[in-house]
Amino acid sequence: MMKLLSIRQQLYEIVFGTETKAGRYYDICLIVAILLSVVVVIIDSIEGFSHQTETALLLLEWGFTLLFTFEYLLRLWISPKPLAYARSFFGVVDLLAVLPSYLALLVTGGQYLLIVRIFRVLRIFRVLKLVRYLGEANILMRSIIQSRRKILVFFLSVGILITLFGALMYAIEGPENGFTSIPLSIYWAVVTLTTVGYGDIAPQTPMGQAIAALVMLTGYSILAVPTGIVTAELSTEMMRQRSLTRCQQCERGNHEADAEFCKYCGTELPEPLIKDPSLS
Amino acid sequence: MMKLLSIRQQLYEIVFGTETKAGRYYDICLIVAILLSVVVVIIDSIEGFSHQTETALLLLEWGFTLLFTFEYLLRLWISPKPLAYARSFFGVVDLLAVLPSYLALLVTGGQYLLIVRIFRVLRIFRVLKLVRYLGEANILMRSIIQSRRKILVFFLSVGILITLFGALMYAIEGPENGFTSIPLSIYWAVVTLTTVGYGDIAPQTPMGQAIAALVMLTGYSILAVPTGIVTAELSTEMMRQRSLTRCQQCERGNHEADAEFCKYCGTELPEPLIKDPSLS
Amino acid sequence: MMKLLSIRQQLYEIVFGTETKAGRYYDICLIVAILLSVVVVIIDSIEGFSHQTETALLLLEWGFTLLFTFEYLLRLWISPKPLAYARSFFGVVDLLAVLPSYLALLVTGGQYLLIVRIFRVLRIFRVLKLVRYLGEANILMRSIIQSRRKILVFFLSVGILITLFGALMYAIEGPENGFTSIPLSIYWAVVTLTTVGYGDIAPQTPMGQAIAALVMLTGYSILAVPTGIVTAELSTEMMRQRSLTRCQQCERGNHEADAEFCKYCGTELPEPLIKDPSLS
Amino acid sequence: MMKLLSIRQQLYEIVFGTETKAGRYYDICLIVAILLSVVVVIIDSIEGFSHQTETALLLLEWGFTLLFTFEYLLRLWISPKPLAYARSFFGVVDLLAVLPSYLALLVTGGQYLLIVRIFRVLRIFRVLKLVRYLGEANILMRSIIQSRRKILVFFLSVGILITLFGALMYAIEGPENGFTSIPLSIYWAVVTLTTVGYGDIAPQTPMGQAIAALVMLTGYSILAVPTGIVTAELSTEMMRQRSLTRCQQCERGNHEADAEFCKYCGTELPEPLIKDPSLS
Repeated sequence: MMKLLSIRQQLYEIVFGTETKAGRYYDICLIVAILLSVVVVIIDSIEGFSHQTETALLLLEWGFTLLFTFEYLLRLWISPKPLAYARSFFGVVDLLAVLPSYLALLVTGGQYLLIVRIFRVLRIFRVLKLVRYLGEANILMRSIIQSRRKILVFFLSVGILITLFGALMYAIEGPENGFTSIPLSIYWAVVTLTTVGYGDIAPQTPMGQAIAALVMLTGYSILAVPTGIVTAELSTEMMRQRSLTRCQQCERGNHEADAEFCKYCGTELPEPLIKDPSLS
Repeated sequence: MMKLLSIRQQLYEIVFGTETKAGRYYDICLIVAILLSVVVVIIDSIEGFSHQTETALLLLEWGFTLLFTFEYLLRLWISPKPLAYARSFFGVVDLLAVLPSYLALLVTGGQYLLIVRIFRVLRIFRVLKLVRYLGEANILMRSIIQSRRKILVFFLSVGILITLFGALMYAIEGPENGFTSIPLSIYWAVVTLTTVGYGDIAPQTPMGQAIAALVMLTGYSILAVPTGIVTAELSTEMMRQRSLTRCQQCERGNHEADAEFCKYCGTELPEPLIKDPSLS
Repeated sequence: MMKLLSIRQQLYEIVFGTETKAGRYYDICLIVAILLSVVVVIIDSIEGFSHQTETALLLLEWGFTLLFTFEYLLRLWISPKPLAYARSFFGVVDLLAVLPSYLALLVTGGQYLLIVRIFRVLRIFRVLKLVRYLGEANILMRSIIQSRRKILVFFLSVGILITLFGALMYAIEGPENGFTSIPLSIYWAVVTLTTVGYGDIAPQTPMGQAIAALVMLTGYSILAVPTGIVTAELSTEMMRQRSLTRCQQCERGNHEADAEFCKYCGTELPEPLIKDPSLS
Repeated sequence: MMKLLSIRQQLYEIVFGTETKAGRYYDICLIVAILLSVVVVIIDSIEGFSHQTETALLLLEWGFTLLFTFEYLLRLWISPKPLAYARSFFGVVDLLAVLPSYLALLVTGGQYLLIVRIFRVLRIFRVLKLVRYLGEANILMRSIIQSRRKILVFFLSVGILITLFGALMYAIEGPENGFTSIPLSIYWAVVTLTTVGYGDIAPQTPMGQAIAALVMLTGYSILAVPTGIVTAELSTEMMRQRSLTRCQQCERGNHEADAEFCKYCGTELPEPLIKDPSLS
């Protein structure tokens, strides 16, 4: 029993940790497996392969499914709090990475082609397993989180703009010029405001073209707003040069580099040991 | 009489204010009603529903119209200066939210289909009632207002550029390649400069393609200008915000928004006098 | 003679200056005339008007031409250095604003339709007369001029990139997929890199689509470079808060707001009187 | 022998150096030769020339090939470490500039048209010889290199996003609406996320259009991230530059690049030790 606990402890450091050499090797192997399995899903969607290739792809696919199933069960077993892991973002992602393959087995009738296709495509959500290695607590994420309120206000404004512009174009151009309903006109407004411009729906009347020009110039200009928000936040963040020091009284971190006292409780801070590596 | 005044006072705090609990509930209900009524207008524009669904949509639509009419009259009654409210931006918006529905009743003849369509679409201006909740006095708006002169100069320059490029393309490509008039060529210039690129009008001659490439590169580069303006203004604004609170012990500023103690001497910081809610 | 000189002096202040009331009125009238004459040129390009309307447009056009001719001669007469004015940017623009109308008179034969069209379109260069009122010495222009070397390096890099990508796509896709020559492929590369995307030429082979995706991601990312340059320059410029103070020893300006000594000769600077209005 | 060494030394300063007058002339001649030879390759790809013009282009092409071959051998000979040069980026570029012309001689059979076309197009890689003159050690490159980790994280996130969005659209729209495989759907996701928008593949179902609108808004917003990274890095870099020179009298820094006297005390500033040429 004691030995089993010790094995679980060691496995925990390999599977969840990144400090040990074995842990790093495990991570690299897993990244390679994820990338390969995603490539298999992508290739699988191309039609016109020989029967032989399709069998090989099927075998590979089941190999990866079993591997990720084993990994999920392993993580559940070695985690000190299995339920917390299963409910966490990565627990859900790890489950989603294997679930569609098993669910696809249940619907084998030829008449449910669409559902089978959806299940086969859903296997691509495996790619989310890579998010674990993006270093989610980095400076980029922090800047975006800190400016989430401003970004939300920006998106609400964009939402109001596209609703108004879409409805206006529906009234001016009308179904006879391809703007068959307000939802489609709103879709056109998004295509135009974001400067994508497919050209599948385009204004035909001079009045519609004038409004369209206005939508384009608006979209071209307000692009400055999210950029300004993220840039200003990133600049401030980079200048702050936050240290990794934590207050010994209230155990809260996120202090600026020139701080000598904790900003939350006023206690003197210890000398900083190492700076945040993502800042250098 | 005294009681009626007191009721008006209480209603004023609920309808116009956001501090009381009842005021917040009122706001949430109104937001939900606005969103639902906008969804009804959008769905109403899709053709091919059964007679039953169309009747349901008509009933819902009149329900929302009566609700917003009642709200408008209520606001007129409880406002201390009804005329000032009626003339204000939100007064006009509240009126516009109900007016088209009543006006559409006046033109019921089958021959005025276009006008009926326009009135039905105009009901979407209800979405502007949401602007009230965007927190219009926030840091984003202030940055844009402060840089309005620079943005105006930028738009005038863009206006001169598209006029010149449009006329040039009209001369080079001409009506035989789809550039039938200068207004249409200016529309093409807007489509190209803003990098939307529908492709409904595209240069055919090598000379025209060279000029088009120049327009694209210009549009691609000058996008930097509004972004630069807004970013520089936002950064300044955010730095200004930091220096508002100063320590009463050591008189040093530059504290973060969530700091409660001075990071230089550990003294408790005073409450900030004006705290911008969009910063937290 | 003395009186004539005095009239020239007064006219100079009205026509070239902006300080006097008459000078401001003159400017406003000229701006209105420029805008109206540009509108006439734009409307003139639309086909299908009645004979009557075309005659009215012709009369209006000649009215504006005579007005701008008179203005050009007036400026030549009252300018203290007529040759310097004629050679300056605005002198050339003022001449170009009237020249095409006179040149179009020389080619009246029906067989030179294209040349006549070009001359008629060239009249739109009148719009450049508006540049005088854009306040060309403002903070935007200064930022762009200060970063001209970096912007040049950026454009050279973009030039090398589009040449390489264009040639690569010509080799991969070839004439059979619409990429008929390297110049056309370079045009495609510009359309794609600047994210315009007309869709008139689009890659058909999987290999070509992979390269195209690379071009798009490159264009999407390097857009950050000119924006970064202009923003960084604008921020620095706005923080510097240059004062209008000039050194009394070497008569050079452009000092920072906190400068107490001239950075060019070391003399103490006088107290600043007014700050740069374009900065506030 | 001694004399030969001296000639090698002198040639080295001309060919590799830029300080001497002869070195600058050599550089200008080489730049002109590169640009002309690239123009020849571009023109050569246009079909429909007369036999005479094609012969002239062939002669010019071989002239440039021999010139660049001679230059490559010269550089190999005069370089103090020929092997290090041959292995360096510019050594490889110089070799690639001549190799395709010789390789094209080996495949003269009429049946290898595609290979001949590829070899002829590869000659355009000569344009990379220009990179030598872009001043590769400038502030732009340094900013991009310093933020390479953040940019990599950004591209990985974009990669995950386009994989997910592409697979989702393949499941929703399916082969019947042009989304024939996941690779093609990922290509569509790149076209849409980067706001290029060719329109060759466009969603047809309302559900697909809703997802497409989401992809567009995502692409429109996350464009802010690379811009923010580069801008913040460039600003920091430019501010760092300002603090390099300090006054020897009052020990204060933050002087402008063109300052010769301290703006705080009027003392002459020392010569800056390293002066970035890209800043002036």
